[in-house]
Amino acid sequence: MKIAIVGSGALGLYYGALLQRGSQDVHFLLRSDYDTLLKNGLKVFSINGDFELPLIQGYLRSEDIGPVDLVLVGLKTFANDMLYDLISPLVGEKTQILTLQNGLGNEETLSELFGGERIIGGVAFLCSNRGKPGEVRHLGAGRITIGEYLRGNRDRLETLASVFNHCGIDCQITDDITKARWEKLVWNIPFNGLCTLLVQTVDRLLAAPRTRSLIREIMIEVIRAANAQELSTPIHEKYAEDMLIFTDSMGAYKPSMLIDREERRQLETTAIFMKPLEQGQKHAVAMPRVEMLVTLLEQVA
Amino acid sequence: MKIAIVGSGALGLYYGALLQRGSQDVHFLLRSDYDTLLKNGLKVFSINGDFELPLIQGYLRSEDIGPVDLVLVGLKTFANDMLYDLISPLVGEKTQILTLQNGLGNEETLSELFGGERIIGGVAFLCSNRGKPGEVRHLGAGRITIGEYLRGNRDRLETLASVFNHCGIDCQITDDITKARWEKLVWNIPFNGLCTLLVQTVDRLLAAPRTRSLIREIMIEVIRAANAQELSTPIHEKYAEDMLIFTDSMGAYKPSMLIDREERRQLETTAIFMKPLEQGQKHAVAMPRVEMLVTLLEQVA
Repeated sequence: MKIAIVGSGALGLYYGALLQRGSQDVHFLLRSDYDTLLKNGLKVFSINGDFELPLIQGYLRSEDIGPVDLVLVGLKTFANDMLYDLISPLVGEKTQILTLQNGLGNEETLSELFGGERIIGGVAFLCSNRGKPGEVRHLGAGRITIGEYLRGNRDRLETLASVFNHCGIDCQITDDITKARWEKLVWNIPFNGLCTLLVQTVDRLLAAPRTRSLIREIMIEVIRAANAQELSTPIHEKYAEDMLIFTDSMGAYKPSMLIDREERRQLETTAIFMKPLEQGQKHAVAMPRVEMLVTLLEQVA
Repeated sequence: MKIAIVGSGALGLYYGALLQRGSQDVHFLLRSDYDTLLKNGLKVFSINGDFELPLIQGYLRSEDIGPVDLVLVGLKTFANDMLYDLISPLVGEKTQILTLQNGLGNEETLSELFGGERIIGGVAFLCSNRGKPGEVRHLGAGRITIGEYLRGNRDRLETLASVFNHCGIDCQITDDITKARWEKLVWNIPFNGLCTLLVQTVDRLLAAPRTRSLIREIMIEVIRAANAQELSTPIHEKYAEDMLIFTDSMGAYKPSMLIDREERRQLETTAIFMKPLEQGQKHAVAMPRVEMLVTLLEQVA
């Protein structure tokens, strides 16, 4: 399968590396790390075992890759206005576009640009970050859940999932990608938001009873907004407690948005906060804490 | 009038200086600035005109002051467990105790220690801060509102107000000191809270439409909690807008709590946040934003 990785940050490099190691024909669209990666290859430090790809196919322009079977989008959502230029040269008749980006609205944007029938939604639960140039670190988890943006046939999802699983990427199929997105938001909104605002790792927030309980309250607001979206089945409020316990096992983890703040990048507030707030508002679900959180975030970012 | 100033921070030094300049017999209980103040006196830089007191009566121990007519309490509320030791030696048969401290609960604490009939509640709208040792800066406002803690006779309040006004301190009398306290909290909770959390002056918060509107929402929560407290007359919600416009005139003002954070002092979260939250809770008034604000504050302080 000819695959283009658009957005070669921690997520794009990690999944791209696994796919290449699994003998897929992977092409990385690169920017800052181009020279290092072409010269020295890519080093992956992973809890599942380190490995190295001495040679990768890296490019500075999509035109040099040309049409592919699959575009894997890992771009930061604040750069979504570049999607058309970056992806157009990669699109042939049968090209599928899988977005693993954060938050809401990415399938919609891609669908407007390239047609809904190409678009596959994906949600990644991955703890990873960049090391030095030419390196990526995989700290935990890694499962991908994928689903059709339009209700299409399930066959191509099965094929895609089988390629991913064959390459060592735990890939599940869902009939309700909207629900999967909201489930990720239940984690992303409180932890990305609070860790970034306070410049603290997840364990510090979980250790203090009052912040732990604030996280739970924020999760409940997100769950209520999610359940107003006509999901196939509702997200139970108990899911909040499950996520707290799951996060207890992550140690001193830094969510990606905190890393973005520390490296003075833009924050993904639109996709992770504003779009969910809009959806909540549309259905008259009160989200005072989520609203306050993004207001504070935007004031420091 | 023999007056003791307990808590000679910006507020205590400023009002003490005005009282001394107005020929009252003022005694300052001091700590860190003792040497400087005794040697060089006190310099006041004020928007109403600078002045200097070359000689002040300063002490390290209340025992050396002895009983006074009036104790003026300007102590930070997190030091309230020192009130008994600091004030006891100052109390004679007719001693009145006026607290100008922030937040809720100070009259109650003093009343338990020294009897309610001595206690006068006071609320100061004062913009001031410390300069170098031996200096105090008065940046704006300055009005004091005083009221009986127990419904007592109004005579001693009239006397006190007349002394203060004679010394150039704008002093008003109220029959409802609880309302005056809550009115100050309408300002103190959002501005002390948000400025301290974000390490920003008031003008930066007011300039951004989303933080401005968050401030208003927080004020409304406080006003609703206030109006559940059996005030003589309710605080109108329009008071929030008035306070925003009033604060627009304050420029790049740093609330006292932000200065406390910068100087790594403890924060007055109990008096300014926890006690009002308790009062709100007691009357089932929802205050999600105030609660979230103090939770975040305590996580950074």
